[in-house]
Amino acid sequence: MNNKRKIAVVITARPSYSRVKTVLEAIQMHSSLELQLIIAASALLDRYGSAVNFIEKDGFNIAAKVFNVLEGENLTAAAKTTGIGILELSTVFDNLKPDIVVTVADRFETMATAIAASYMNIPLAHIQGGEVTGNIDEKVRHSITKLADYHFVASESAKERVIKLGEDANFVFNTGCPSIDLAKQVKENSVQLPFDPYEKYGGVGAKPDLKNGYLVVMQHPVTNEYQDSRKHIEATLQAVYELNKPTLWFWPNVDAGADGTSTGIRAFRETHQLPNVHFFKNMEGKDFLHLLNHADCLIGNSSVGIRECAYLGVPVVNIGSRQNRRDRGENVIDVNYDIVAIKNAILNRISSIKNSSNVYGGGDAGKQIADLLYEVPLLFHKTIMY
Amino acid sequence: MNNKRKIAVVITARPSYSRVKTVLEAIQMHSSLELQLIIAASALLDRYGSAVNFIEKDGFNIAAKVFNVLEGENLTAAAKTTGIGILELSTVFDNLKPDIVVTVADRFETMATAIAASYMNIPLAHIQGGEVTGNIDEKVRHSITKLADYHFVASESAKERVIKLGEDANFVFNTGCPSIDLAKQVKENSVQLPFDPYEKYGGVGAKPDLKNGYLVVMQHPVTNEYQDSRKHIEATLQAVYELNKPTLWFWPNVDAGADGTSTGIRAFRETHQLPNVHFFKNMEGKDFLHLLNHADCLIGNSSVGIRECAYLGVPVVNIGSRQNRRDRGENVIDVNYDIVAIKNAILNRISSIKNSSNVYGGGDAGKQIADLLYEVPLLFHKTIMY
Amino acid sequence: MNNKRKIAVVITARPSYSRVKTVLEAIQMHSSLELQLIIAASALLDRYGSAVNFIEKDGFNIAAKVFNVLEGENLTAAAKTTGIGILELSTVFDNLKPDIVVTVADRFETMATAIAASYMNIPLAHIQGGEVTGNIDEKVRHSITKLADYHFVASESAKERVIKLGEDANFVFNTGCPSIDLAKQVKENSVQLPFDPYEKYGGVGAKPDLKNGYLVVMQHPVTNEYQDSRKHIEATLQAVYELNKPTLWFWPNVDAGADGTSTGIRAFRETHQLPNVHFFKNMEGKDFLHLLNHADCLIGNSSVGIRECAYLGVPVVNIGSRQNRRDRGENVIDVNYDIVAIKNAILNRISSIKNSSNVYGGGDAGKQIADLLYEVPLLFHKTIMY
Amino acid sequence: MNNKRKIAVVITARPSYSRVKTVLEAIQMHSSLELQLIIAASALLDRYGSAVNFIEKDGFNIAAKVFNVLEGENLTAAAKTTGIGILELSTVFDNLKPDIVVTVADRFETMATAIAASYMNIPLAHIQGGEVTGNIDEKVRHSITKLADYHFVASESAKERVIKLGEDANFVFNTGCPSIDLAKQVKENSVQLPFDPYEKYGGVGAKPDLKNGYLVVMQHPVTNEYQDSRKHIEATLQAVYELNKPTLWFWPNVDAGADGTSTGIRAFRETHQLPNVHFFKNMEGKDFLHLLNHADCLIGNSSVGIRECAYLGVPVVNIGSRQNRRDRGENVIDVNYDIVAIKNAILNRISSIKNSSNVYGGGDAGKQIADLLYEVPLLFHKTIMY
Repeated sequence: MNNKRKIAVVITARPSYSRVKTVLEAIQMHSSLELQLIIAASALLDRYGSAVNFIEKDGFNIAAKVFNVLEGENLTAAAKTTGIGILELSTVFDNLKPDIVVTVADRFETMATAIAASYMNIPLAHIQGGEVTGNIDEKVRHSITKLADYHFVASESAKERVIKLGEDANFVFNTGCPSIDLAKQVKENSVQLPFDPYEKYGGVGAKPDLKNGYLVVMQHPVTNEYQDSRKHIEATLQAVYELNKPTLWFWPNVDAGADGTSTGIRAFRETHQLPNVHFFKNMEGKDFLHLLNHADCLIGNSSVGIRECAYLGVPVVNIGSRQNRRDRGENVIDVNYDIVAIKNAILNRISSIKNSSNVYGGGDAGKQIADLLYEVPLLFHKTIMY
Repeated sequence: MNNKRKIAVVITARPSYSRVKTVLEAIQMHSSLELQLIIAASALLDRYGSAVNFIEKDGFNIAAKVFNVLEGENLTAAAKTTGIGILELSTVFDNLKPDIVVTVADRFETMATAIAASYMNIPLAHIQGGEVTGNIDEKVRHSITKLADYHFVASESAKERVIKLGEDANFVFNTGCPSIDLAKQVKENSVQLPFDPYEKYGGVGAKPDLKNGYLVVMQHPVTNEYQDSRKHIEATLQAVYELNKPTLWFWPNVDAGADGTSTGIRAFRETHQLPNVHFFKNMEGKDFLHLLNHADCLIGNSSVGIRECAYLGVPVVNIGSRQNRRDRGENVIDVNYDIVAIKNAILNRISSIKNSSNVYGGGDAGKQIADLLYEVPLLFHKTIMY
Repeated sequence: MNNKRKIAVVITARPSYSRVKTVLEAIQMHSSLELQLIIAASALLDRYGSAVNFIEKDGFNIAAKVFNVLEGENLTAAAKTTGIGILELSTVFDNLKPDIVVTVADRFETMATAIAASYMNIPLAHIQGGEVTGNIDEKVRHSITKLADYHFVASESAKERVIKLGEDANFVFNTGCPSIDLAKQVKENSVQLPFDPYEKYGGVGAKPDLKNGYLVVMQHPVTNEYQDSRKHIEATLQAVYELNKPTLWFWPNVDAGADGTSTGIRAFRETHQLPNVHFFKNMEGKDFLHLLNHADCLIGNSSVGIRECAYLGVPVVNIGSRQNRRDRGENVIDVNYDIVAIKNAILNRISSIKNSSNVYGGGDAGKQIADLLYEVPLLFHKTIMY
Repeated sequence: MNNKRKIAVVITARPSYSRVKTVLEAIQMHSSLELQLIIAASALLDRYGSAVNFIEKDGFNIAAKVFNVLEGENLTAAAKTTGIGILELSTVFDNLKPDIVVTVADRFETMATAIAASYMNIPLAHIQGGEVTGNIDEKVRHSITKLADYHFVASESAKERVIKLGEDANFVFNTGCPSIDLAKQVKENSVQLPFDPYEKYGGVGAKPDLKNGYLVVMQHPVTNEYQDSRKHIEATLQAVYELNKPTLWFWPNVDAGADGTSTGIRAFRETHQLPNVHFFKNMEGKDFLHLLNHADCLIGNSSVGIRECAYLGVPVVNIGSRQNRRDRGENVIDVNYDIVAIKNAILNRISSIKNSSNVYGGGDAGKQIADLLYEVPLLFHKTIMY
């Protein structure tokens, strides 16, 4: 007879996995917790970098896989993907009978996890609530907060915001962001880039020499501006093209609008020579952090710039509205979708001093969260505090 | 070419229809609005009183019907019903292309409306947010608030609560509850009960004489106590049995736990003589209000006791936690699931004075909401206010 | 390491379980087979007699449960139930990785099993193909034959028909019907009714003395006549009412039209005294066979009349089109939905001699099927034979 | 009041549209028929050539769009896509209330159309049943035949086969294949290629001169060999590479295995120079026929080789099992997935004489089918003929 508390964690995308990897490890190593890992949505799909392969390689057992991404890459498909997710996850929860379900962050389809768990009276923990960004993710994020019973937030301002949302302060915990745990390991152990990215990850395009520094680009479509996603990516492409420095470019994730972003990149490559740019489909989380740790600058709108790069002290050019109003350290400069502004910001950043910050935690979030998942009382019934 | 603003209203249950009927009428009569009425979930099903028949009889055109109730009457089925609802409603919205979607109150499946609309960047209006009850409905209600762009709330305290939840005060409107609009019509026009309920609505059981007063009972299962729903209904049944006064009893709605409530009622009837109790499956909204208006007391946990009965000034014995912390007038007395307490409260109430209150509005909510649906700017992008 | 061949059997309704119970036992006892039992659709639902409880009481382990019945009891709901069934069963098969999937008979939702398995290249075995009835079941049955790789049919004429449908004769096996296996056990062991049905199964209505013989009624709605299901059941009710003999009446199964049948029975009971009729919701398969074995006559349109009653030699009045063109023994008389005809046929039958027949097998189908499931090569690719 | 017979046609893929375009035109022009065109599945998706754009450009009104393709490109996704299709199409049929539903050919997801219609008692017409190929399509095709009420087949041998399957010969009509109608128009009107394919359709790769003849390649993955799809496409790629003749290559459709085929093509292009090969994503049906009409040879496994090319008399090298046992004219030579065999067959074909054949009809199928859709009695109830 197994008396461990069963913790189901649902991972729906590659970046979510990277973000909570140390939580998964800490749950797995905890003597009184049993990890039930559920992989769903784009985390299962080849063309978004199939996180499931990395997860299995990292030694995690997968309790269930849920294919629920509806094709279309429009807003209707995002809604339907969520609907199918609820249908499937409720069967999975019915079979696994977890004591607590954990949902991560704010991608649209994480709502499926939140609804299935809360409607089935399974206590729901939410990692990374309370932040503010100003896009569709924000509706999703705060809406999940109102469904969740425990909140593991990443910063003091996030904690305050969740409490203002009427949540019981006893169940709002500022653990820091678990992605910082990985950044800490990388920063403490890396004198130089410990692998050859071209050899290890393939990809396409030029193979610029990385010895004298390089740029990293990662730019996702913004959900509520998805009709402009092609125009947005073109500004970045043009700026990088004009700078002509060694650049490593990462493919966008699946979101309404991904087609515009992907199509924009493909079209630009057909019409421009990019002798200093290499394109990667994806990269194991830790390797990506090593890459950032040695980069001159990160460009785009990835949350990694706001978050891990704060701890690492890597300069960041953050483009557009996707990270609006998120807490950030001094490493970040913000610009609009403007070719000249992007170029100037990059040139400014690569000559700046590296400033590190603990705004998103000190590197032990995974362990803190696992301990709390063991300690919290099992609740699924709450009422607003005001 | 039609330039009216298209307003899709999704009705998923009989009581929701009664609640917003004057809104539907006001939208229909508004010269610059076009009503797209969508009927879904239990509003389509015979065994929950098929609201769709009343709706058609009232002269509304139905733009689409969505069958999405999964059988099982357990929590898994509630989750799946919501998942199917999203799948289907997103197709419906794709075809109807509404300018604004309106979702009503806080039943679990209304989340499907909220998610489909907000994920598809269709401005979402929510009627009756901001209230507080302490059951699963509360998670749903506040979660929908965080997805909605406009809030038509029913009381001042609800308005304050929605604003505290971080919503933009410019889009939070205290219109009062549209159900009060109907109560106003009834109160102003009714000297005596204008129909014979047995003849008009059939039902089963005894047919007590109603001339010298009568009780009305309406008790629904409580979602997060659904395993106790049979025990809860049995306390009420026993109290009513012992009082042995003319009583009109209404069947519960579809919720996880309905089976316990229904089974409890059926079993009690097999083993007890109830010479003064008649059971109804459902009743047209207006007739039900007439019935309440002339009743000595309403017993159970229906929101009609808190809401319409406040305006009508009808005494109410409110049982258990379902209406916890909702605003209420002086007409209400609260008791637990306890036979003696229920009996005493009924006896106390039927001798009390009728006190009317405007806590849920003054009877023009429908018109106010229609006018606002025409006036508000079309928004689907918001950010938390703090 | 487990090298047994994994056999997934999907049970979607109470009668299907009774029909294949000896197959499940034989698979379970086979040293080289592993049973993966999947319970779905109405087999999980209380109001259709929750087969799942009997299954667990019989000692079977359930590998997965799938709730997929959409409410509505109309034809749209039947289609949607099948769609949800495919969605869910494909995930189940993905996790269980069976070597062969077994689907039973011809209820509409069994198509979900057939499609999920055949689309996933899992060899599909079909029990009870090749029969002919003339209703919607026939479309389903022959359509499944064209998806199935192995056919375990119940009679010689069924075998011939499946081969005519272009199937490879090497994989069409006349094993007889496994329901006959149970009939054989009952017939060999029963001198008198071994239980008191009122005490053991409850139910409602009168409790007539069964010592001097009794009638059994079981009448289901007919899918493609579902709008008439109320009228059809009323003819039988009136005939039974007029005969006024001890009668045990069984509730119908879930099919488009069940509402008409159920409503008809309920309404008749409200308006007529039935001092000799008892109503059962359901009964364990074996007990039902004992009941039939001692009955004077079975009335209605259940396939048990054509099938088990042939082996038992029990007289049957078969009403309407539901069993059209099925093989039958001399025990059956066919009538239309006509009160007088039904009455006369019952009077004729209860005075007739009991004739037994092996037209549906000799009582070892379960063992034959299990042995074949072990022996057949694993195939999922076929082509029509002409 | 509209008294036209309503004919719903469900198109789920680009090639299906091309195949039945003349049927759609004939229905639209028929004075007593009303066309309800439903576009679903990959016909809506950009990456499979978005048939919907061509359909709208051709002037058809679309009554409903159904997004139901689940991502994954594995067999589980094919099953789920079909399940979602049933869910959605049943709502669509519920709203449109067609008199007859028409389903086309044998792609896996067309089963969703067939099940939704037949379960809802809507008469079902099937275009192109009765053929034989030896892959998963065959299970689907014959299974749909057993659900369909009317059969519009493309050849005499198909007609015989459908009748052998137990269908009523009165409702099996050899109309020829409607794709031949388009071939007839093209053949009668084309002296030379009437457009520049590079200019009109873009695409990528070399732009070989087409004046002195060219090859056309179209090779789809084969469902039940999907794990080998990459190996299969590589044999064709290598053969074409070695021949080094002007070649126009078309992208595969969506099927389990498309990933293998697509990936194979992309990888080959990265590692080989293909100075004579141009790649197209898609082409309007009529233009594609013009292209074939002037081609030296069609290579691959498209049914267009067997069907339209018979009428046009264009030489075909048919590779592998996908068209196994289909009727074919003298224009076709069959080879295995073998580089040398493919090369030799191409060389043999391009020097052969062009032989035309009417095996798939004489070019008036569209009109015949529309007339029959008007004339047939409305049936949804059938029984096997033996």
